[in-house]
Amino acid sequence: MDIRTPYLLFLGDVPDALAAKTAYGIVDWRRDWCVGQLRLPGCRADTGLPDLDIAAARQAGAETFVIGAVNPGGVLPEHWIASIVEAIEAGMDVASGLHMRLRDIEAIRKAAERHQAALLDVRHADRSFSVGKGVRRSGRRILTVGTDCAVGKKYAALALEREMTARGYDAEFCATGQTGVLIAGRGVAIDAVVADFISGAAEWLTPEADPRHWFVVEGQGSLFHPSFAGVSLGLLHGAQPDAFVVCHEPTRRTMRNVSHPIAAIGDVIEETVRLGRLTNPDIRPIGIAVNTSTLPADAADALLAATAAEHGLPAVDPIRTGMAPIVDRLAALFGTP
Amino acid sequence: MDIRTPYLLFLGDVPDALAAKTAYGIVDWRRDWCVGQLRLPGCRADTGLPDLDIAAARQAGAETFVIGAVNPGGVLPEHWIASIVEAIEAGMDVASGLHMRLRDIEAIRKAAERHQAALLDVRHADRSFSVGKGVRRSGRRILTVGTDCAVGKKYAALALEREMTARGYDAEFCATGQTGVLIAGRGVAIDAVVADFISGAAEWLTPEADPRHWFVVEGQGSLFHPSFAGVSLGLLHGAQPDAFVVCHEPTRRTMRNVSHPIAAIGDVIEETVRLGRLTNPDIRPIGIAVNTSTLPADAADALLAATAAEHGLPAVDPIRTGMAPIVDRLAALFGTP
Repeated sequence: MDIRTPYLLFLGDVPDALAAKTAYGIVDWRRDWCVGQLRLPGCRADTGLPDLDIAAARQAGAETFVIGAVNPGGVLPEHWIASIVEAIEAGMDVASGLHMRLRDIEAIRKAAERHQAALLDVRHADRSFSVGKGVRRSGRRILTVGTDCAVGKKYAALALEREMTARGYDAEFCATGQTGVLIAGRGVAIDAVVADFISGAAEWLTPEADPRHWFVVEGQGSLFHPSFAGVSLGLLHGAQPDAFVVCHEPTRRTMRNVSHPIAAIGDVIEETVRLGRLTNPDIRPIGIAVNTSTLPADAADALLAATAAEHGLPAVDPIRTGMAPIVDRLAALFGTP
Repeated sequence: MDIRTPYLLFLGDVPDALAAKTAYGIVDWRRDWCVGQLRLPGCRADTGLPDLDIAAARQAGAETFVIGAVNPGGVLPEHWIASIVEAIEAGMDVASGLHMRLRDIEAIRKAAERHQAALLDVRHADRSFSVGKGVRRSGRRILTVGTDCAVGKKYAALALEREMTARGYDAEFCATGQTGVLIAGRGVAIDAVVADFISGAAEWLTPEADPRHWFVVEGQGSLFHPSFAGVSLGLLHGAQPDAFVVCHEPTRRTMRNVSHPIAAIGDVIEETVRLGRLTNPDIRPIGIAVNTSTLPADAADALLAATAAEHGLPAVDPIRTGMAPIVDRLAALFGTP
């Protein structure tokens, strides 16, 4: 799935910033791709982008109208449809991370047909994949893995890409979830792929490449999560990473939506190496990314130091401290750009 | 997916028995469900069932017309369509394990609409699933696992069901592949489920049950196969087996369709226990099923004896020697019916 940039971000009339998390993520990582935001009366979210109507956004070059907000319940509210149709009529494509498909709404489908607009439902794969082959490919790959779902794997991968690019590496964030696809402008929501093709989709996402090219792959789920471990394993095998970063949320006690205890960092390292060796015998950990946002600064610093010492790896908070120590380790192991 | 019995098995005009493997599998395990076979001129396969035309099959009670053959290339030949339409017009449902969907062929779809016939594409899930919860459920579960794909996991599960039922156990074969679904009359092709729902589909297939009920679950792929390990892991977590049987093909050197070496039986046991503990801490191996069909009898006997001694588990050939020693072990560990 390829999404044309730049974007106009649509926030609807959501009641708070959390409901516009996707839009905030895009602004955090791809500010340059956004010409502005469109908010309906009563909207309580604000990404800080200029407020533009559809005509002004089009004049500023907007190619895709991105639905950057979710309604409670996940359905598209009736009163958002008029804005979507207006964007299509002005010449834009529409991208959505909602569960429901844009083409299932008649007014949107008909407008898209009339104007040859693309309707990009990033939760739904728009192509088929081959089964994974498990053959080593040229180019380098990093995968972010987790002690649970929703522990910052996407942000860690994006922060890695940013730090590596700043140092001159040829690094490319590879999105595997719907928000990631909107941030990257391409990618595949791997959890929406048919089960037989998980590793094949990951191979497609990170194909044979220049030996100096680094794919920085957004991880999904956790090898220890009873709902999603199969997805995590297929992604690990297909991505065949040379290096991985473990992501962790230190205040969580049980895994998301189940009663299983959160996995230990050491167990995630050991299991990722053991299982990852099937498609890359040289796989190794290069760091730990901890989300310390809920801790006071001194406690966060102490935790990072203790985590680093315990595992013999750089431990960072991607937002608070940045990824530099992990990229230092990567440079030491794999060479500078 | 529930398929009404009895069946009329359609063999088309396939050039050999291998192309009608599905039909042979159904006759091997569910002879009583089959009123007959329908063969077109030139057909070189013969399951031994009486040859019946559609009217005679309907009179004998046939409820479902099962496409038990595949055309080279996997598409439905044009000249098979008339027979399918005729079966629908006579009042039968149609079940197919082909990749292409029956409803995508206009003549078939229209006939089914006219006669309210069900079109059962067993490779495609006809329902949605929840994500797996990982909660222990009552009832007992056995899973067949493999050192590779296509090493006899379905036959081992069916042979277990047969032996357990003969001894008075309340045992139920649970199909997870398209041929298995046709043999069982229900089930889910787990590799066709959306990735997020693999373990959830396996939980749906083996729900909370009477403590003396045994689900005998057909395994898929292998934890060591780089194309399909994610499916195998999701199925393992969702099925949460109390016991498992390792299936093996002793003459194979590399895994099917890839260049990876076939997994060692001991590694499969160790890894299945390690990963299976996430959803069932009491998981344990109860036997090894070896397909010795290509070996002379004395070599087969020697191999089974050596395999049993090496792993301290009963080792059988499900077809040649039967599953009795494995069910003996099951009875010793979990009790008689």
